Amino acid sequence: MEKLFVIKIGGNIIDDETKLSSFLASFSNINGKKILVHGGGKLATRLAEKLGVEQQLVEGRRITDAETLKIVTMVYAGYINKNIVATLQAHHCNAIGLCGADGDVILAHKRQHPVLDYGFVGDVDAINTVLLKNLLNQNIAVVFAPITHDQQGQLLNTNADTIAQEVAKGLSRDYEVSLIYSFEKNGVLLDANDDNTVIGKINLSYYQQLKAKQKIFAGMIPKLDNAFAALNNGVKKVIIGKAENLEQLVQGSSGTTIENE
Amino acid sequence: MEKLFVIKIGGNIIDDETKLSSFLASFSNINGKKILVHGGGKLATRLAEKLGVEQQLVEGRRITDAETLKIVTMVYAGYINKNIVATLQAHHCNAIGLCGADGDVILAHKRQHPVLDYGFVGDVDAINTVLLKNLLNQNIAVVFAPITHDQQGQLLNTNADTIAQEVAKGLSRDYEVSLIYSFEKNGVLLDANDDNTVIGKINLSYYQQLKAKQKIFAGMIPKLDNAFAALNNGVKKVIIGKAENLEQLVQGSSGTTIENE
Repeated sequence: MEKLFVIKIGGNIIDDETKLSSFLASFSNINGKKILVHGGGKLATRLAEKLGVEQQLVEGRRITDAETLKIVTMVYAGYINKNIVATLQAHHCNAIGLCGADGDVILAHKRQHPVLDYGFVGDVDAINTVLLKNLLNQNIAVVFAPITHDQQGQLLNTNADTIAQEVAKGLSRDYEVSLIYSFEKNGVLLDANDDNTVIGKINLSYYQQLKAKQKIFAGMIPKLDNAFAALNNGVKKVIIGKAENLEQLVQGSSGTTIENE
Repeated sequence: MEKLFVIKIGGNIIDDETKLSSFLASFSNINGKKILVHGGGKLATRLAEKLGVEQQLVEGRRITDAETLKIVTMVYAGYINKNIVATLQAHHCNAIGLCGADGDVILAHKRQHPVLDYGFVGDVDAINTVLLKNLLNQNIAVVFAPITHDQQGQLLNTNADTIAQEVAKGLSRDYEVSLIYSFEKNGVLLDANDDNTVIGKINLSYYQQLKAKQKIFAGMIPKLDNAFAALNNGVKKVIIGKAENLEQLVQGSSGTTIENE
């Protein structure tokens, strides 16, 4: 099977023009099929402040009222998405920017929660892979803004990590998928305060050992649980590492590789 | 050749939720290949006011400084484009929203003007039809936001009427293209103040007669000149009429049809 890289770009890169530009140059250099998933929370928060739309975050998740949905649709699917695509074109990487409503590519439903109303927040139900495969096979890189829809006309704000994972899982029947989460750290660390203690490879048994010895920083546990869930759903490997090292992450020579052995 | 409808939706419809919803229901009902081109100037102006970004219009054209480019990219390619796509999906019309940078579909250059600096305003150089044909042949309707790019990483604000015309011309080798300009009037009128004086059909000799007799309202002359230019570049017919009558415009039973006979 042909290789496919599904790459989530960390929020700290989106906010930094120099870092973003260098990240996109590296992304353009990746040989073969590739998908980029971005968020852009800080820019959305800044626009909301300017417009006087109060933002409410619960455990890092944005409560998305109607005005906030407008803002994230404008910032994620408009400003950030189209500027990323234009920059990739300048690097001779043909790219297309989509949200989940485009081509009905990501179907979601409004989150139901027993206590909390998250507002217009979507949980993903299905990835429609026909159009994605068609675009990838034309050697077009797909750039996803984290906005989905419910097929009833409602756009929904959706977690970008989740979109990366669902897209990776959905395409794993057709491609050998590497799912890369790029962020501000060098990888999964043995010592959360020492960026030189990156764990190079983790499989399930090693992860269970590390967890038993409480060697995994609590904040990494959901990321790793999600990584193993992706592996159980057909994704070949998950790589977590520093966005600035994207080319090495792709080669597996930097960051933490999570793989079933 | 298969038929293709390229439809420019008037600004007054974009601003009116009820009218927009009914327009999109009609658009969904059109059989066959179709492309929608929208603007959204009033919503952009409103956001600019809220953000305190002063807008300068010269002969109806927006001077696009860097802040205004951000605003139109957010409003046109984000908010309006994605809401139109989600609404079309709810009507079971599969649609994809693009700007000119996506798939490198519309290449433009920054307008050069001897006296006036229009800012980040683009004039169209080329339509890349390969991806468009591919999408249309999957029965996906394409929805264009009036933003293009210069292949150097710069997004450019571009007139939506021009985009509709260039896309129609570009695809006229592959399809029998009808270019529809929907707006607030019933069509080209003999008496600008009487909406019941629609001219049903105009060819070039009739247009020249009407112009010689000064029977054409001055504001319509650029639209009609553009229509004949489109016909000279392969477009089969141009239809100008009321957005509310979209289904009749498509059938040729309402509005003004401009055609070489």
